[in-house]
Amino acid sequence: MPQSDRVKQILSWYGSDNPGVKTNLARMLNHGTLAGTGKMVILPVAQGFEHGPVRSFQPNEAGYDPDYHVQLAIDSGCNAYAAPLGFLEFVADRFAGQVPLILKLNNSDTLAKVEQPCSAVTGSVKDAVRLGCTAIGYTIYPGSGLRNRMYEDLRQLILEAKDAGLPTVVWAYPRGAGLSKEGEQAVDVTAYAAQISAQLGAHVIKIKPPKDHIEQAEAKKVFEKYNIPTKTLADRVRHCVQSAFNGKRIVIFSGGEAKDTPAVLEEVKGLAEGGAFGSIMGRNAFQRPKAEAVKLLQDVMGVFKNAK
Amino acid sequence: MPQSDRVKQILSWYGSDNPGVKTNLARMLNHGTLAGTGKMVILPVAQGFEHGPVRSFQPNEAGYDPDYHVQLAIDSGCNAYAAPLGFLEFVADRFAGQVPLILKLNNSDTLAKVEQPCSAVTGSVKDAVRLGCTAIGYTIYPGSGLRNRMYEDLRQLILEAKDAGLPTVVWAYPRGAGLSKEGEQAVDVTAYAAQISAQLGAHVIKIKPPKDHIEQAEAKKVFEKYNIPTKTLADRVRHCVQSAFNGKRIVIFSGGEAKDTPAVLEEVKGLAEGGAFGSIMGRNAFQRPKAEAVKLLQDVMGVFKNAK
Amino acid sequence: MPQSDRVKQILSWYGSDNPGVKTNLARMLNHGTLAGTGKMVILPVAQGFEHGPVRSFQPNEAGYDPDYHVQLAIDSGCNAYAAPLGFLEFVADRFAGQVPLILKLNNSDTLAKVEQPCSAVTGSVKDAVRLGCTAIGYTIYPGSGLRNRMYEDLRQLILEAKDAGLPTVVWAYPRGAGLSKEGEQAVDVTAYAAQISAQLGAHVIKIKPPKDHIEQAEAKKVFEKYNIPTKTLADRVRHCVQSAFNGKRIVIFSGGEAKDTPAVLEEVKGLAEGGAFGSIMGRNAFQRPKAEAVKLLQDVMGVFKNAK
Amino acid sequence: MPQSDRVKQILSWYGSDNPGVKTNLARMLNHGTLAGTGKMVILPVAQGFEHGPVRSFQPNEAGYDPDYHVQLAIDSGCNAYAAPLGFLEFVADRFAGQVPLILKLNNSDTLAKVEQPCSAVTGSVKDAVRLGCTAIGYTIYPGSGLRNRMYEDLRQLILEAKDAGLPTVVWAYPRGAGLSKEGEQAVDVTAYAAQISAQLGAHVIKIKPPKDHIEQAEAKKVFEKYNIPTKTLADRVRHCVQSAFNGKRIVIFSGGEAKDTPAVLEEVKGLAEGGAFGSIMGRNAFQRPKAEAVKLLQDVMGVFKNAK
Amino acid sequence: MPQSDRVKQILSWYGSDNPGVKTNLARMLNHGTLAGTGKMVILPVAQGFEHGPVRSFQPNEAGYDPDYHVQLAIDSGCNAYAAPLGFLEFVADRFAGQVPLILKLNNSDTLAKVEQPCSAVTGSVKDAVRLGCTAIGYTIYPGSGLRNRMYEDLRQLILEAKDAGLPTVVWAYPRGAGLSKEGEQAVDVTAYAAQISAQLGAHVIKIKPPKDHIEQAEAKKVFEKYNIPTKTLADRVRHCVQSAFNGKRIVIFSGGEAKDTPAVLEEVKGLAEGGAFGSIMGRNAFQRPKAEAVKLLQDVMGVFKNAK
Repeated sequence: MPQSDRVKQILSWYGSDNPGVKTNLARMLNHGTLAGTGKMVILPVAQGFEHGPVRSFQPNEAGYDPDYHVQLAIDSGCNAYAAPLGFLEFVADRFAGQVPLILKLNNSDTLAKVEQPCSAVTGSVKDAVRLGCTAIGYTIYPGSGLRNRMYEDLRQLILEAKDAGLPTVVWAYPRGAGLSKEGEQAVDVTAYAAQISAQLGAHVIKIKPPKDHIEQAEAKKVFEKYNIPTKTLADRVRHCVQSAFNGKRIVIFSGGEAKDTPAVLEEVKGLAEGGAFGSIMGRNAFQRPKAEAVKLLQDVMGVFKNAK
Repeated sequence: MPQSDRVKQILSWYGSDNPGVKTNLARMLNHGTLAGTGKMVILPVAQGFEHGPVRSFQPNEAGYDPDYHVQLAIDSGCNAYAAPLGFLEFVADRFAGQVPLILKLNNSDTLAKVEQPCSAVTGSVKDAVRLGCTAIGYTIYPGSGLRNRMYEDLRQLILEAKDAGLPTVVWAYPRGAGLSKEGEQAVDVTAYAAQISAQLGAHVIKIKPPKDHIEQAEAKKVFEKYNIPTKTLADRVRHCVQSAFNGKRIVIFSGGEAKDTPAVLEEVKGLAEGGAFGSIMGRNAFQRPKAEAVKLLQDVMGVFKNAK
Repeated sequence: MPQSDRVKQILSWYGSDNPGVKTNLARMLNHGTLAGTGKMVILPVAQGFEHGPVRSFQPNEAGYDPDYHVQLAIDSGCNAYAAPLGFLEFVADRFAGQVPLILKLNNSDTLAKVEQPCSAVTGSVKDAVRLGCTAIGYTIYPGSGLRNRMYEDLRQLILEAKDAGLPTVVWAYPRGAGLSKEGEQAVDVTAYAAQISAQLGAHVIKIKPPKDHIEQAEAKKVFEKYNIPTKTLADRVRHCVQSAFNGKRIVIFSGGEAKDTPAVLEEVKGLAEGGAFGSIMGRNAFQRPKAEAVKLLQDVMGVFKNAK
Repeated sequence: MPQSDRVKQILSWYGSDNPGVKTNLARMLNHGTLAGTGKMVILPVAQGFEHGPVRSFQPNEAGYDPDYHVQLAIDSGCNAYAAPLGFLEFVADRFAGQVPLILKLNNSDTLAKVEQPCSAVTGSVKDAVRLGCTAIGYTIYPGSGLRNRMYEDLRQLILEAKDAGLPTVVWAYPRGAGLSKEGEQAVDVTAYAAQISAQLGAHVIKIKPPKDHIEQAEAKKVFEKYNIPTKTLADRVRHCVQSAFNGKRIVIFSGGEAKDTPAVLEEVKGLAEGGAFGSIMGRNAFQRPKAEAVKLLQDVMGVFKNAK
Repeated sequence: MPQSDRVKQILSWYGSDNPGVKTNLARMLNHGTLAGTGKMVILPVAQGFEHGPVRSFQPNEAGYDPDYHVQLAIDSGCNAYAAPLGFLEFVADRFAGQVPLILKLNNSDTLAKVEQPCSAVTGSVKDAVRLGCTAIGYTIYPGSGLRNRMYEDLRQLILEAKDAGLPTVVWAYPRGAGLSKEGEQAVDVTAYAAQISAQLGAHVIKIKPPKDHIEQAEAKKVFEKYNIPTKTLADRVRHCVQSAFNGKRIVIFSGGEAKDTPAVLEEVKGLAEGGAFGSIMGRNAFQRPKAEAVKLLQDVMGVFKNAK
């Protein structure tokens, strides 16, 4: 497949990276149904670690098996499949080369009570390399009192990953003592989290669909002074994408809690209209029966394919 | 001995591991009375460190001597013997090659009062290699405020152990400020601990027999919605084994507090019926007179041998 | 361009440094409108990370794009352009060699609430080298309970940077539990921060324009006993420059909050009169429309060029 | 001197150690008055650091001089002399080869008030090697909230020491928030500390003479159930020695506070009768005039020599 | 200059050190007015960092310039000049070889409020080597809750310095939560700090002139029991020198707060009479006009030269 103009354009934004990193970024952009469009739909399955197995996999019992998810990613034509070490270790050998793998390098469970959230580093760049992965993934919690530790660990991992020719996907989830519950998905906070990720060196940034709320008083003044629209999801997505180097970083959005199919597609249309580069959709995909899940993912890809 | 089909099948679940790790995993599966069955009974003796010598060894005074335990493991046909550094250092040279050794790399004593439980790292992969061990062992306490440190240390040790061709056995004991006392053995929590261990890269997972209690409100809703049975021990074991990659990770169960022989065997039958891969039985073995202990361990192996 | 006498004199103050460090220091002193004068005007753009994107870039929307700033630095003839990793990574390849780049190695966001301020280390000397940078930058917060960690990290980075032939620019911003709000810009505290930076090995020191307030009781006695003048900005700048090795370290001043053009130029005149080596001007530059910003920066350079 | 049967037997308990470690263990067992008996009397002088110089050395002013102590160890025929870095550094060169030296690698002073006791690491294996030492020494405080840090540092040092062919002497002093004052020398706690030391890999274990008190409720039940005698010092020593791998680790006892000669010898007889491998006697030796000290140490050796 | 008998004797106390360390120790002992006498007067200038520039340098404004101090040390015939990194970096190249330099490796400022005092490590052995220094310097705060960290960092630095052939000067300043304000200069505490420094491996120990106060109850009993004289400064100095390996470590004394010339010389006479090896005099020297300072330093040297 010749490199599409859009992929060439996107790669040009990462000019200071070495050819290894660009090659792996291109591999994700050129894989699956959305190959060459510059759009990405990724299947992530970290919920087993994050929420526990029964909440994650009982709704679609086939999901207890690690093979299920990677096969779902392949069958639905996703650009990549992201998961923690154990899940990837289980499939990497047998599914070698069938779909780009993203090793999620940190994870958090919900069994302990902690004041300042911070994920544990549960994998390494060395693991990503030996498992044939195409990228590493890492979660930051801007707003947590431990954010600096996460930023610093991430910075180190990005540097190591570059040396191994691997790009980095950053999950930016604001939370912690510095933010109200509502503020975690506020449009100003979400856009700020995208900016931080970009400044830290993320190649792909994953944020949540922002809500029509502004958390920080200083930011609110600016939104009002310049009449920045935040009414529709598309408006808010547009602001977040702009906040990530004026749209010159790949910004994708999570699907969040499980919902019905029309609600999912409605949200995705808003994302696409606002200029999102794609979706990263976990529970809404793997908790459905497989045929439904494949259909939904393909419909989501259809929305992005048809977006400007 | 030619590789049995069951052992071949089990090894196939660890496809991304190097041949060194698979060789040592096979060594444990192919040793002792249960060789080739895919089942394992392991003798662990860490209580001297964890509970102190008098509580551990006075009931069967021969146990003060480190030689006693390794000989018991050999005489009863266990798949492996697990202990902290000092105990293995004492026997490794004289008993070289007689039974697979698992070096328990962290341990906790009961002399200090701490809020957030965490074991000390008391051995290293380098020690395991120089002592001729077949695997390393490590305990995590999901639910503790220090869980992340344990997960991160474990992650590092697993990576080092792989480089040395050694598989890892994880003792997953939920405890700490995030859990009620009853919750430490709740079925949802135990299954969650098995999932975390598998995601962290454990080759063998050791959990406690789960009790008929559900700790987490969010999990309870799912158990109820899907009518997941938890009445019998077999039911609960089945759920835990499923939670460890749909039964494709070796999950074994501890014996817990000392009890009489019929109670031990009754419990083991429940474990076997639920699909447990075996038992790891310490106090119930080494605190009995030797002949009784050998008999009990052989009876336990008999139960697993006859299980489907 | 032959080395000017003033640049030769300045370089003589860094006699213990290796030729690599001196070469890069000379590169900054010999670049742009002020080349050869011994004065420096630097454009820094870290506000996206420090204050969030909307507050930083909405006033002049072109600034969401990382290209905008480096081009502004080039077009206005600045000595150097300073920014966090992400911004430099975006431009380093395409703008290679057009303007000296300073990689800001630590940054702090405003989403978390913390008692003791401390920036996260978000870049490395290795990054500075691979991006072709001319210097590294680092912020310290004298007055914070975490100041020692910052001093120690800085010390280590300076040593690494020297090995790579890179000089270090230190942003010295007193703040934290040890200081009153007013004390953060007190003349004694600002001068003390300049001294600490010089003792830690900074090649260029960036402080805020000091205010006519003395924070420390012990220092107040000395100011009074020796009648040290602090009424005018020039007086206070003179004291701060003297406090940095008797004027033999390059001390430059930030512009602080956005203000109108006459106010900016008035302040700069005070700085120049007091012997400042230059300005580092961010928000007052990039939040203006480009033509205005270029004009302002050139006017500022004019003030320094005409200073004694 | 041909290896005595007893020394051969003792060395056989350390079978997994390399010949370098065994050689140095043998050097201590084969030095001085007790050479070849399997018993050891060691002179330790860390009180200058632990209690301050005036309390330690004024009672016998010659002791301010570091030469005094090593000469005392030589003249009285001790198996070894143990001290912190400074003291050994002072004598190692001039006294090279005259008596085995044990470098005490951590120490604690009494000038600071801390909640959780922990000694500072004040020396290294590299120091021990360059000073020609025969072993390293390290103190743990089971019962302290910082015990894990001490266990982990010790574990690392033992591993390094083995690589340098050096055995490790562990001072096991229970103390900290987990224990009552009386509990610090309780027989159950002392035996537990001996067990922990052995499990951590200690070659020689140094504990205090246990008192007739049981600290832990769970342990008390076992002492009562099995009628374990604790009335006499010999009874309690026997339990502690048994608790250290059934008497197959070298367990020696400290002399504790200064007392009169008959009291010292009375205590030593109790130790010897209970199966102690020897004494480590500091203040009771070096705070006496030299002739008295030599006589006392020789009398102590006599007791051990004549013990079964 | 042939080695004097006294210098030979002093070097004999450091027998375990390598020739590199001894050479640099000899360089300090053989430099300046006191060359060959075994006495030392050192000029230290860390006050700019410790107390801020205005308090340190305004009394003698020439002192803002780093050149001033090193020239003062040379002109007055000091044995060595000690300062933090920035000051030495400024002068090392131009003054190469004119006076032994001691790089002060840690420093503390007075802008932050902290409970447990601890200096930041602001330089490294590598810096000392590249700047041609003759020794490193390090401050410990016995009595602080962070003392162990300081002892451990120091231990590591001493080891590194030895490998580079550099001796270590320890500034021992008791302070912190474990001590009363008066206790910081108590004779028992000062002597204890000297002992700790010696045990940690210091080659030269710098303490404050002890006051006639005893801080620790246990020490007080001993002072009383043995009638240790503490009335005169000479008495107290004698006890401190004895406490540092019976006078076989170089112990020098600070001058403390600025005072008039007769008071300074009176104090120095007391020090010399008590057996001090010399003085380290900062503020009392560099805050005077230069001619006065040179005269004072020479008078001080005269006192030591004429002492027994």
